[in-house]
Amino acid sequence: MAALRLALVQMAVGSNKLENVKRACQLVKDAASKGANLVALPECFNSPYGTQYFKEYSESVPGPTTELLSQVAKECKIYLVGGSIPESENGKLFNTCSVFSPSGDMIGKYRKMHLFDIDVPGKIRFQESEVLQPGNKLLTFTLGNCKIGIGICYDIRFAELAQIYAAEGCHLLIYPGAFNMTTGPLHWELLQRARALDNQLYVAAVSPARDDKGTYVAWGHSTLIGPWGDVVATTEHSEETIFANIDMSQVNEVRQNIPISKQKRWDVYTRPSICDHHEKSDRSKKTKDCSGYDIDVNKHVD
Amino acid sequence: MAALRLALVQMAVGSNKLENVKRACQLVKDAASKGANLVALPECFNSPYGTQYFKEYSESVPGPTTELLSQVAKECKIYLVGGSIPESENGKLFNTCSVFSPSGDMIGKYRKMHLFDIDVPGKIRFQESEVLQPGNKLLTFTLGNCKIGIGICYDIRFAELAQIYAAEGCHLLIYPGAFNMTTGPLHWELLQRARALDNQLYVAAVSPARDDKGTYVAWGHSTLIGPWGDVVATTEHSEETIFANIDMSQVNEVRQNIPISKQKRWDVYTRPSICDHHEKSDRSKKTKDCSGYDIDVNKHVD
Repeated sequence: MAALRLALVQMAVGSNKLENVKRACQLVKDAASKGANLVALPECFNSPYGTQYFKEYSESVPGPTTELLSQVAKECKIYLVGGSIPESENGKLFNTCSVFSPSGDMIGKYRKMHLFDIDVPGKIRFQESEVLQPGNKLLTFTLGNCKIGIGICYDIRFAELAQIYAAEGCHLLIYPGAFNMTTGPLHWELLQRARALDNQLYVAAVSPARDDKGTYVAWGHSTLIGPWGDVVATTEHSEETIFANIDMSQVNEVRQNIPISKQKRWDVYTRPSICDHHEKSDRSKKTKDCSGYDIDVNKHVD
Repeated sequence: MAALRLALVQMAVGSNKLENVKRACQLVKDAASKGANLVALPECFNSPYGTQYFKEYSESVPGPTTELLSQVAKECKIYLVGGSIPESENGKLFNTCSVFSPSGDMIGKYRKMHLFDIDVPGKIRFQESEVLQPGNKLLTFTLGNCKIGIGICYDIRFAELAQIYAAEGCHLLIYPGAFNMTTGPLHWELLQRARALDNQLYVAAVSPARDDKGTYVAWGHSTLIGPWGDVVATTEHSEETIFANIDMSQVNEVRQNIPISKQKRWDVYTRPSICDHHEKSDRSKKTKDCSGYDIDVNKHVD
């Protein structure tokens, strides 16, 4: 296969749904014309981000928006990770990413699994669960020899999701996401680097461009992190598309040099709370019990 | 209780074992005299770090070195995390941390669970497993309302260990460690910040001071990371002790503001490789199966 060239489209999102989708398709075409064969859009790219907007902007998947995404993927002969849109199904709403192949087929859809419910007093309160339902399925697809897993925004805070994708053999995780001006500077890049380093894979996060007048101000800073935990490509907060090649030899190198996936102690990771029965592990035939804990004293400092 | 004041002793380690232990005890006393009630020493503080040294410097635990640590803990009325030393037991060698209470009692010992076996061609090759055996037990202890978990150096690369400690209720993880001039600048701080943010707890890492003439050159940079993933205290590579208070309100704040531990999707984290049966979860009564995966296509880009 040709080199896997990824484009992350940090697009400006407005209040007109059809205009947003047309703009997304134009930016996808531009990225493809510059050599990208895998293009990713940001979270909530056809709607302003906010619980007050999701119902109004929602539609079925497949539906009008994904039909246009399918067409542009087919026209450009690329894989397209369609950021996310508010999806409605049987009266329920989801935050949903759809993925398309170069033939325009929808490979699958991923519904945000961890809803964004946080409350940092005086800074940011957001409760997606007031209007959205969480998804229950993971989504992977394979492009050449690169297996790709999908998460959305707040999902990236959950190490377990990335660990599952890594155990499933992924080499690249793509998170359309819209962190904000509080959590963005604190955690956006750190979370990506943590997922990448701990799982020795690439991590991409695609944000909308910042709109200072919006009700929710996105941090921007779409980024690709390499499997050594290094920043491969990033940007500030304006509308921009960033490009980078996915180099599978980097993934193989770090996994060979620092072989943590083969060094996991599945024989010891046996507390009920993180109980694990890693069937492929060499150590899995050893005794599994929860006795592997030492004493726990409870003394006070005077 | 009084404030929990932590000291991380980044001591210079030489080739004379008894001198190393005496020096450690003096630095512990100095730290206690400056108000620390929890003091931590670095990995391999009574021996040069290297597989060629471990057998010669090894001793039993309890043994001569830990007897001196016990005495200084009692004299200073502090909790002491005794870094690590090469331990011998029945002809087997371990990399072992011992922890002491203010009464001088040994609370427990922790043997490095993930042995440091890496090979970054042209940069660093190290194979602890050529001479050491791995430990199989975790160690926690509680100081006031702060529960503390212990790991050693390479253990910090394994997210699972920290996840287990967090599930066990820890608020602070202490890793005596000696990263090197290759992995130190790349990963030392990032790993600490990842463990802290993902588990919303404090993470301390205590290195020996750098000896440029040593066979293994330590990165230094002993650091305390806060539960928001922020650097609370750090230093360069010279011999120095850093101090910081452990503020439980910070732990409680981040866990309340961004309640990820309550938002885990244990109902979905069900792949055999990361199989989990989180018994405390509200979601645990839902169906557990491995059907929660979407299709996996395998197509090539032309």
